[in-house]
Amino acid sequence: MKRKGILVVVSGFSGAGKGTLMKQLVRTYDTYALSVSMTTRAPRPGETDGREYFFVSQEVFEQKIRENGLVEYACYCGNYYGTPREYVERQLLAGKDVILEIEIQGARKVKEMFPSALLLFVTPPGIKELHRRLAGRGTETEAVIRERLGRAQAEAEGIETYDYLVVNDDLQACVEQMHRLIQDAHCAPKRNQEFIEMLRTQLTELCAHADGQGQVSH
Amino acid sequence: MKRKGILVVVSGFSGAGKGTLMKQLVRTYDTYALSVSMTTRAPRPGETDGREYFFVSQEVFEQKIRENGLVEYACYCGNYYGTPREYVERQLLAGKDVILEIEIQGARKVKEMFPSALLLFVTPPGIKELHRRLAGRGTETEAVIRERLGRAQAEAEGIETYDYLVVNDDLQACVEQMHRLIQDAHCAPKRNQEFIEMLRTQLTELCAHADGQGQVSH
Repeated sequence: MKRKGILVVVSGFSGAGKGTLMKQLVRTYDTYALSVSMTTRAPRPGETDGREYFFVSQEVFEQKIRENGLVEYACYCGNYYGTPREYVERQLLAGKDVILEIEIQGARKVKEMFPSALLLFVTPPGIKELHRRLAGRGTETEAVIRERLGRAQAEAEGIETYDYLVVNDDLQACVEQMHRLIQDAHCAPKRNQEFIEMLRTQLTELCAHADGQGQVSH
Repeated sequence: MKRKGILVVVSGFSGAGKGTLMKQLVRTYDTYALSVSMTTRAPRPGETDGREYFFVSQEVFEQKIRENGLVEYACYCGNYYGTPREYVERQLLAGKDVILEIEIQGARKVKEMFPSALLLFVTPPGIKELHRRLAGRGTETEAVIRERLGRAQAEAEGIETYDYLVVNDDLQACVEQMHRLIQDAHCAPKRNQEFIEMLRTQLTELCAHADGQGQVSH
């Protein structure tokens, strides 16, 4: 079967380990391309343009919106964040499975625009573990943890939007699980319309041929 | 995550090798149970009651229909064929993934009754290969091959009903692929409602707890 890339959305609770998972996935298998978001917020120390984000001005971002150059975008705390369309489409055409790490609102927009996108939701094995991870960073105040818990509660309401739930218990096992889920998604009929049409065309030809032979032998 | 069995429907073109595939799958992994159909047709030489089919009288079969004791049934060439419900449900509760080999009409009925069933469609890598396999048995007349081609054409129209398309190129590779697809299906949110509800309950409790702590510390 001829293979096109799949657009993969990864969401999940803050503290579920998405970032580490995806870096490990991309390092392990060369079939993936990690999408880099565009943002208007200022780079933090250590962040590099084109690696963590594409850092642009508000004018450039709003121009992108007008050109329909973003797969999805949202505004948080006065800054824009979005997924540049051109990179995504180029990688998909090249056969790469393109991974976007975005939250649920963005995931829904992507699904509308790319109905054959695969949506994965990453969760720790239980909420106590999530709470431990959130608090365990040691850098968060109680208010931040409380705010994240509230957001996690909202995100939990949307889990059914996703195709698969991935439990991040063990990093490497979880990377393998994600890899299998994405590769298996290539077997869905909606991602193999060309192959199915080829089967149908060939069957029609074979049937016509068999009927022709039948008539001759009568 | 607590694990219930998945009902797996396997359909595919005659000659695609479904029977061999499923026997190999069940032999390789002990998580599967192969459903045995019930029929009113007479046993052929070598067939054993309870192995190839449960052979019953028309009266017994029609009693099963009235009792709603069949997951699906159909009538071919004057004989009934159906899937006894009791065996399927018992195996699912025991955590087994239960495999039914049925054609597309039956597959649709199963999906209506068990919306979380997983539907797999097995196909050879191309129609020429299918034609070769059909003719290659050596036991079929041209008329039989022509009739099967016609049925394959009808079946090809329904491929989008299925969740996954499995290309049977190499037997063992195909068995592994089916195994992965079925095991991955356990990760779908609709098959993990209990886990999701547990996450939601725990999050609500944690949020309430965090709010309580916040009030105390003020």
